[in-house]
Amino acid sequence: MSADTLPRVGCDRLADFIARALGSAGLPAADARIVAGLMAEADLQGSDGHGVIRLPQYVKRIRAGGINTSPAVRVVHERAAMALLDGDNGMGHLVMSRAVDLAMDKARSAGVAWVGTRASNHAGPASLYVRKPSQQGMVALYFAVGNANHLPPWGGMEMLLSTNPIAVGVPAGSEPAVVLDMATTVAAYGKVKAKAKRGEPLPEGWMIDRQGKPLLDPTRADEGFLLPIGGHKGYGLALIVGLLAGTLNGAAMGREVIDFNRDHVTPTNTGQAILVIDLSAFGPPEAFTAAVDQLVRDLRASERLPGVERIWLPGEQSHERRRRNAEAGIPLPAALLTELQSLAIELGIEPLA
Amino acid sequence: MSADTLPRVGCDRLADFIARALGSAGLPAADARIVAGLMAEADLQGSDGHGVIRLPQYVKRIRAGGINTSPAVRVVHERAAMALLDGDNGMGHLVMSRAVDLAMDKARSAGVAWVGTRASNHAGPASLYVRKPSQQGMVALYFAVGNANHLPPWGGMEMLLSTNPIAVGVPAGSEPAVVLDMATTVAAYGKVKAKAKRGEPLPEGWMIDRQGKPLLDPTRADEGFLLPIGGHKGYGLALIVGLLAGTLNGAAMGREVIDFNRDHVTPTNTGQAILVIDLSAFGPPEAFTAAVDQLVRDLRASERLPGVERIWLPGEQSHERRRRNAEAGIPLPAALLTELQSLAIELGIEPLA
Repeated sequence: MSADTLPRVGCDRLADFIARALGSAGLPAADARIVAGLMAEADLQGSDGHGVIRLPQYVKRIRAGGINTSPAVRVVHERAAMALLDGDNGMGHLVMSRAVDLAMDKARSAGVAWVGTRASNHAGPASLYVRKPSQQGMVALYFAVGNANHLPPWGGMEMLLSTNPIAVGVPAGSEPAVVLDMATTVAAYGKVKAKAKRGEPLPEGWMIDRQGKPLLDPTRADEGFLLPIGGHKGYGLALIVGLLAGTLNGAAMGREVIDFNRDHVTPTNTGQAILVIDLSAFGPPEAFTAAVDQLVRDLRASERLPGVERIWLPGEQSHERRRRNAEAGIPLPAALLTELQSLAIELGIEPLA
Repeated sequence: MSADTLPRVGCDRLADFIARALGSAGLPAADARIVAGLMAEADLQGSDGHGVIRLPQYVKRIRAGGINTSPAVRVVHERAAMALLDGDNGMGHLVMSRAVDLAMDKARSAGVAWVGTRASNHAGPASLYVRKPSQQGMVALYFAVGNANHLPPWGGMEMLLSTNPIAVGVPAGSEPAVVLDMATTVAAYGKVKAKAKRGEPLPEGWMIDRQGKPLLDPTRADEGFLLPIGGHKGYGLALIVGLLAGTLNGAAMGREVIDFNRDHVTPTNTGQAILVIDLSAFGPPEAFTAAVDQLVRDLRASERLPGVERIWLPGEQSHERRRRNAEAGIPLPAALLTELQSLAIELGIEPLA
């Protein structure tokens, strides 16, 4: 079923439902609202592997005691242009929201700032956290350790690495911000899960099985592993992102990573990092955003290969989806909707529709 | 001819020769020594697309007036954790050396620092500039705008982007530092040039021609373009690196990039950026480097796919080559050696061997 024929739900209504569910599971109301807002925003922009699809799993983890519902998020180390946050095993969305605000504050004075997290948790799609800085005249780079290892080192069979995503947001002038959000694997594991929910096969090149053969059935995903982009280069990127977002912060990396799809209790000790660059430190921001606009237009208007209808900028398709979904509502696959309604019954809360 | 049967030259002797050539072309002796040392170091670690192979081109540009031989490198903007350097069209190696030192100084107090450059020039392989910080307990990330556009946007035919490399250096304890050095294309253009020098065909997947067909003959490189890693992801990375290293600094990007292989006169206005993270800001550096050692060993010892002899860490092969070349000398292809001897005659300097 294409997105055009799926039932749709308004973003606010979706956020309200998520907040009810998280609140019922044990999160304080104000925290539930923040997390729910970010989760619904993920769906709004079409990051459908990281939005409401994760709600049942989050609820399970909260109810199992795998999340601290009243965390004391604290600064462990701090200098003019950096901080290390301990998330006290709170919801990752809360920890990362705090990290972004702190990095923006520090960047405003120091020009550039880096904030790392540990004892955090899964925080949704990477691009969520570069959006706010990019709306306020700042470039942001985000790195995270994924919450399950699906990637072996290049040439290997043992899944010691995750898809460790990178997101970068760069403000433009009248054009949409350039927003890159990519797993260091050909596909993120969340996209594999989304394919499974939709009952669609995996494209060749996303995963291989332990014999090195293409794995196309997403319901068999746990019998294989993801492939890195550009072979050894993607492996290198995944490792570096893990070192920066995990090891540097004293967060889990390599063998220490908990598979949060299977284990709902053990603290994940998730690590993330955000780098914020204040444009105004480099000269008049208008000169920069005008140059970005020009570059975007040059790329978009450039000569296309035969059969290519349009050249897209990173983040432009999410931007369009966000606009369409804000107007028409967020499309929800039938299987997901059914699962959410069961969850509502289980939690004794008002259902989504 | 494999590297094992090529004539070899000691690193110091190579650096001396490069310094003579650059000095004869017009660089002050002290500057010539710095540039020559970095160029020879590139060859030492096996970055053979960016070492002495570039000497004839650098000499041509210096003699044509395309390089300022007495640049006033200056800080244009500065805050606690950032600086923007104007290289005054000096040799890129000089500008970047200054940028690295400044970033390290600032990171020592602010914890993290970012230094961008403009009016710089080609500075050799990206990994050269993350090496020094990684030897002094600092993580470094380097981004640069390549000096010729060989990459169209994804789906496009117009080469508006360069191979825009990324390098990251992460200190370890007793293991070699983890050093990633990658073009955002499947192959760097320097590797294409090295293939041409060696008379070897290009592997399929490196380049396509303007009909979208594989281009395998490196002497026809200017009839085609490079392919990005991971399709649209590599295109996104190349663009982001260009925005961070170029546009942010007021350096050339997109249509403004000068092809320094064809144009030896126009200032390239090359942009680079270096981010340095002081490990000691995040806690005891020994805890970090011990964790890196453990991770490196876990990856190296992990189960291999059939037929794979060894799992390598990023930078490990360069590290081994550096050790071997330091002992046995740097292998130089016959065609390159001949070219360097002609250059010596042309410049009236003592030849290499």
